[in-house]
Amino acid sequence: MEELAALPGIGPKSAERIAFHILRLSAEDALKLARAVENVKLRLKQCSACFNLSDTDPCHICSDPRRDHSVICVVEQPRDLLTIERAARYRGDYHVLGGHIAPLDGIEAEHLTIARLAERVKDGGIREVIIATNPTLEGDATALEISNRLRDSGIKVTRIARGIPSGSQIEYASNSILTDALDGRREM
Amino acid sequence: MEELAALPGIGPKSAERIAFHILRLSAEDALKLARAVENVKLRLKQCSACFNLSDTDPCHICSDPRRDHSVICVVEQPRDLLTIERAARYRGDYHVLGGHIAPLDGIEAEHLTIARLAERVKDGGIREVIIATNPTLEGDATALEISNRLRDSGIKVTRIARGIPSGSQIEYASNSILTDALDGRREM
Repeated sequence: MEELAALPGIGPKSAERIAFHILRLSAEDALKLARAVENVKLRLKQCSACFNLSDTDPCHICSDPRRDHSVICVVEQPRDLLTIERAARYRGDYHVLGGHIAPLDGIEAEHLTIARLAERVKDGGIREVIIATNPTLEGDATALEISNRLRDSGIKVTRIARGIPSGSQIEYASNSILTDALDGRREM
Repeated sequence: MEELAALPGIGPKSAERIAFHILRLSAEDALKLARAVENVKLRLKQCSACFNLSDTDPCHICSDPRRDHSVICVVEQPRDLLTIERAARYRGDYHVLGGHIAPLDGIEAEHLTIARLAERVKDGGIREVIIATNPTLEGDATALEISNRLRDSGIKVTRIARGIPSGSQIEYASNSILTDALDGRREM
């Protein structure tokens, strides 16, 4: 219970509930869970190309022949990659930065995998880099830095669209969302 | 108190609190409030050009010489107009549709002010119509209908950008927001 309660978002009550749930599991299911926890640390590693987490290197995405390896979508964290994969729209490769530039927290461009991204682009075969860092101050600063680094490469560098979220109401949109939506308007 | 409690969002407790607040007001302030309520019904009317609510006709926006009258931003409701005005970015005119196309609710294009918008465009002097209906099924259908009606006019018809809202995290974005953000990506 102590081990479980140390996990993020799990309080002592939940830990108790989970512990009793594990007691009721079959030996097989309990071992499967134990094995999964073990494997996260033992077998999961970073892909040497895109820095996604995977049990293979290159990862399942980088080595998938059905994907378009001429496009790279740049994200801050592996969980952003998972979210974009869930949307099932994007069929290119990724590049995981490992965070965003935040000078106040001591995180500079050198701490991210930007240099490796520039190498991947230099190696050739890439026609577009889509920057999908978060639409926040730090994410925008990081996007700008990447864009500057890739400027001389001559490839197309794009930023995901910001604007009003699908399904929402204009009436409840913030000033900055409306400003983005107006500035980014597109011909119909 | 009964009259107050009949207003949306005001329960019996709030009505009581407001009633006692009015009792404590000076006669002058209380009359000002009464006059404002009276004026909403007696003096507020629709602008004959843009259908915004105003106590003048044409409304304060249509008659403002500092605004750009060659751009029209089309919104569903007067409250959308207020929200966009609050963002203080847009400096053109408006056109209030009075709702959106919703066949299931019996609202067709003829029930909105689309015909009048087409007339305004036909009258000349307009270079762009920005469609700022909500990013919903009905808002999109309405935008498409307007775009079709204005097709022959030759003027530029744009739609406000949809995408990931400023300040949010990609990790929590829905599939449709991410699809919009990827599809609408722009060169940096």
